[in-house]
Amino acid sequence: MLLTASAHGVYPIAPTPFTDDGAIDTASIDRLTDFYAGCGCTGITILGQLGEAPKLDHAEAVSIATQVIRRVPRLPVIVGASAPGFAAMRALTREVMDAGAAGVMIAPPNTLRTDDQIVGYYRQAAEAIGADVPFVLQDYPLTFSVQMTPAVIRRIVTDLPSCVMLKHEDWPGLEKISTLRAFERDGSMRHIAILCGNGGLFLDYEMERGADGANTGYCFPDMLVDVVRLSAAGQREQAHDLFDAHLPLLRYEQQPGAGLAVRKYVLMKRGLLTSATQRKPAAPMSATARAEVDHLLARLARHDARARLG
Amino acid sequence: MLLTASAHGVYPIAPTPFTDDGAIDTASIDRLTDFYAGCGCTGITILGQLGEAPKLDHAEAVSIATQVIRRVPRLPVIVGASAPGFAAMRALTREVMDAGAAGVMIAPPNTLRTDDQIVGYYRQAAEAIGADVPFVLQDYPLTFSVQMTPAVIRRIVTDLPSCVMLKHEDWPGLEKISTLRAFERDGSMRHIAILCGNGGLFLDYEMERGADGANTGYCFPDMLVDVVRLSAAGQREQAHDLFDAHLPLLRYEQQPGAGLAVRKYVLMKRGLLTSATQRKPAAPMSATARAEVDHLLARLARHDARARLG
Amino acid sequence: MLLTASAHGVYPIAPTPFTDDGAIDTASIDRLTDFYAGCGCTGITILGQLGEAPKLDHAEAVSIATQVIRRVPRLPVIVGASAPGFAAMRALTREVMDAGAAGVMIAPPNTLRTDDQIVGYYRQAAEAIGADVPFVLQDYPLTFSVQMTPAVIRRIVTDLPSCVMLKHEDWPGLEKISTLRAFERDGSMRHIAILCGNGGLFLDYEMERGADGANTGYCFPDMLVDVVRLSAAGQREQAHDLFDAHLPLLRYEQQPGAGLAVRKYVLMKRGLLTSATQRKPAAPMSATARAEVDHLLARLARHDARARLG
Amino acid sequence: MLLTASAHGVYPIAPTPFTDDGAIDTASIDRLTDFYAGCGCTGITILGQLGEAPKLDHAEAVSIATQVIRRVPRLPVIVGASAPGFAAMRALTREVMDAGAAGVMIAPPNTLRTDDQIVGYYRQAAEAIGADVPFVLQDYPLTFSVQMTPAVIRRIVTDLPSCVMLKHEDWPGLEKISTLRAFERDGSMRHIAILCGNGGLFLDYEMERGADGANTGYCFPDMLVDVVRLSAAGQREQAHDLFDAHLPLLRYEQQPGAGLAVRKYVLMKRGLLTSATQRKPAAPMSATARAEVDHLLARLARHDARARLG
Repeated sequence: MLLTASAHGVYPIAPTPFTDDGAIDTASIDRLTDFYAGCGCTGITILGQLGEAPKLDHAEAVSIATQVIRRVPRLPVIVGASAPGFAAMRALTREVMDAGAAGVMIAPPNTLRTDDQIVGYYRQAAEAIGADVPFVLQDYPLTFSVQMTPAVIRRIVTDLPSCVMLKHEDWPGLEKISTLRAFERDGSMRHIAILCGNGGLFLDYEMERGADGANTGYCFPDMLVDVVRLSAAGQREQAHDLFDAHLPLLRYEQQPGAGLAVRKYVLMKRGLLTSATQRKPAAPMSATARAEVDHLLARLARHDARARLG
Repeated sequence: MLLTASAHGVYPIAPTPFTDDGAIDTASIDRLTDFYAGCGCTGITILGQLGEAPKLDHAEAVSIATQVIRRVPRLPVIVGASAPGFAAMRALTREVMDAGAAGVMIAPPNTLRTDDQIVGYYRQAAEAIGADVPFVLQDYPLTFSVQMTPAVIRRIVTDLPSCVMLKHEDWPGLEKISTLRAFERDGSMRHIAILCGNGGLFLDYEMERGADGANTGYCFPDMLVDVVRLSAAGQREQAHDLFDAHLPLLRYEQQPGAGLAVRKYVLMKRGLLTSATQRKPAAPMSATARAEVDHLLARLARHDARARLG
Repeated sequence: MLLTASAHGVYPIAPTPFTDDGAIDTASIDRLTDFYAGCGCTGITILGQLGEAPKLDHAEAVSIATQVIRRVPRLPVIVGASAPGFAAMRALTREVMDAGAAGVMIAPPNTLRTDDQIVGYYRQAAEAIGADVPFVLQDYPLTFSVQMTPAVIRRIVTDLPSCVMLKHEDWPGLEKISTLRAFERDGSMRHIAILCGNGGLFLDYEMERGADGANTGYCFPDMLVDVVRLSAAGQREQAHDLFDAHLPLLRYEQQPGAGLAVRKYVLMKRGLLTSATQRKPAAPMSATARAEVDHLLARLARHDARARLG
Repeated sequence: MLLTASAHGVYPIAPTPFTDDGAIDTASIDRLTDFYAGCGCTGITILGQLGEAPKLDHAEAVSIATQVIRRVPRLPVIVGASAPGFAAMRALTREVMDAGAAGVMIAPPNTLRTDDQIVGYYRQAAEAIGADVPFVLQDYPLTFSVQMTPAVIRRIVTDLPSCVMLKHEDWPGLEKISTLRAFERDGSMRHIAILCGNGGLFLDYEMERGADGANTGYCFPDMLVDVVRLSAAGQREQAHDLFDAHLPLLRYEQQPGAGLAVRKYVLMKRGLLTSATQRKPAAPMSATARAEVDHLLARLARHDARARLG
């Protein structure tokens, strides 16, 4: 089952569960994977930036990917394959594709500047992993310092048939979705899936602009599923009501660097992770921050019972 | 009336009003200034990054500063004096201080990297403007790419008595406020005012961490005044309720680059600006974006009557 | 006399002379200007990055430009007009063009990333200064962090008739010259003058690639004049011999940040500046560094008598 | 044989030889390694930035390291271990140290900004590889965008006993060497080896400032050996004469990005590499560039017979 341009719904960015001493927590991987499948997610992305991929060695990465893929044979699993060189990118891609992955996600190295450099990089990356491997183009200037205009994305999509999905997380990014969809309408670009990241901070309006769903790791992926479903069903105000109820917590989780600790803390409180441990280097979460998240959860629980976490 | 370390409350970052053809709109300047004074703001910051300062020539900048200062003789007015060289910084500072400004705000040039470079820059800036001129240290890594640790801020505060206020807009930034206040408690740093920017995105918890107020330009400064007042009065849940109601719009306005158009659009709808025009270079606001803001206002109006803007 | 695309030869980047106490040294300005005119320079560029332009206030900048322009009525004088906003850029441009400048030089702000941002910036800049004012496009990625591909330069040249010259200082940059000249040969770009900066570090081969001359501030502009002349006359090995003799010192002077002190020190030793003073902020020159420059001059003097500075 | 702070002489940065079709060229590895040992190099650094390390997969990297280490059992071999995460860094370090490497070299990720971030990164890296593994601190702001002040280097050296050598390639960097050596003299920092990179562009004066040698990949490492020896022997002018003769070519090779092609081209002409091939991504070398290098070699041959390469 390969990823295609008709991907849609919610592909959570899965965190990598560790035990308190930093070992890979395979039990939590199963529990989390089952939860994703059970709450309506349509795919899963693993080993991304917030999956602590750089802290895993090659064998660990392959092992985690294999476990998740086997656990949910009916869901497409996308594996983050960004690497400083094409040799490592190719090596990981080959192994996870052999294991049954649906495709890989590739972020740009933060040294790219010009349009030609960006397009050239993806051309070489696609060649390195093989033209038959579907890939997700990750567009996250805030983190990667690489700015892709809609025209650059169109060049990549046009040049590389294996580019089937955009992980859209430019900021601001609403007009970018509109522009890309207009390219499709005027026939200058084929259709690709657009799933939105950036912590989900604009998911409400991104859906209305033409996004196909979410590709982010917010600690309530079940809320993302609901918002995407309500929005697709035309229940606009209900979608916004639910989204707005979560926005205070979602905004808190979306803090660069600090957010992963929040995410793991809530997933632990939800019973999905046994431990909120991150491997080093990790930004610790202060007692005050934990109290703030507890406060946000208590306030959220007035609107969404899933946030009642005792 | 000079700015001191006891500054608190809300100092809005004032936009610069232009007429449709790009001329300075003095009538709107008066109207906006009166509004700030009338709704409980305790000071005003003008000619900042989002005041389109680089698009004004020197004479225009001085003229606007003079108009605002004269209009609200009882409110401290802070003037943005960031410049690529100390000559221009000194020239503007001298003129606005002579006109009655309370102090100036200085952002770091985006070429600074090391701790010593940052401290050295502010030492030279303070010398350039004169040691008797109070200044605000602007800490906005997202925009300026300059990262100041709490220890660097402490060095600046300790070395330079004229540094009386921090415009705090690091992101994430909550722990930074806690660290700086801890420095004050342990006696290693004198007290300075901390007013928060970053669009107000974390004002709710920033107040609880020890901030003295807000220094940002959200289109409902009257809401910021209420939140700061409620928080200071210990009415925690009421502060959060009001803040959360505004958060969907506030988040929308805080988009880098795109946000100023939203801000001016809403201020125009509120009757405070005659025109939402920006001078070039300006990011235009699409019809879809305007409709989204109207939608956000309509939803907000269910909670806050000030958002009923017909 | 306006700058045109037929500019060639050597346009030194003039330093701004200060007295020991930081005042503008008008006597040295005259002396230096006369020297440039006397040794075969075909134009002069003032108030550039290494002319300490950001340390001058507006009135000082205009005063210096006027003095130089009047001193050499037969030489085209280019004035650096880079500014954080178009208002200041326009204001300075208007005044110096009225005073008789041949054109202005515009560097890109270091926040530009995508091709469209770069082209858009120059379009707006050209509009701001007026379509009748010839301008020099400064392409210096090492300092400005803005990377312009040859195709981007072609777009600017094609869109903006007032772009008549490229200050070429990309690094590496030899292939860029070849590509731009190939654009001219294949008819896809009109001819522009290409004068090379980057401290002159590759001037020897840049001339052979098709450059029209030098636009840099090396402390022996008379050597640059000779190399350009020898190269244009086909005296290849003589050009290289002279260039190579200067390369050890030239390389030493080209150090980012530290180089201006070296340049002013040698120009003082040559009797052209009364003082090597820079305005703040300035990197001081250590006694060891001065001894190293003296050593380099002594070694150079074995090949070029102009370096005998006792 | 572990690397210690008494390292000195020339540790060339070895390129990785590939055959025309991109396979690892083990015969050239042996030939090049023998050449280094035979011409007076005192150590070898492999798998660095210009050793195309990111283009090798893990098994290839280990295989190359093992081959070189076995070939020159009496020379210390340093292995580049920079990686986006500590897991990969640790994995490679363990294997090459087991194979007999003398230590590893670690470059900072280009996201580091503040002094504390830099020190913290090296603390975590040293912990990751093990406190018993000597490491080289690579200080190359031009490539990595990380600026380390002398005080930061002192903190790292003081905190981490396993930091035994600095690969010094700041630019400008002469004063940095003087400052670090002054730290040693005033007792505030223990002695470390300082070997200079940056293409060797300032090796002549770096030796006089107190450097212990060179750690760079210029295509005539035998010249570097001579310059270091002459300088150490107090034969100052002879050292400069030889260095200056090579400077035109050395400067040409030191072009960022383009330089590796030049280096491999000359090493091939010298009979040390069978092919000048780079793995992708690679900047190609134009026919004009090859002719320029041939010209530089012909000119150099007038002073140094080693450059007569037919």
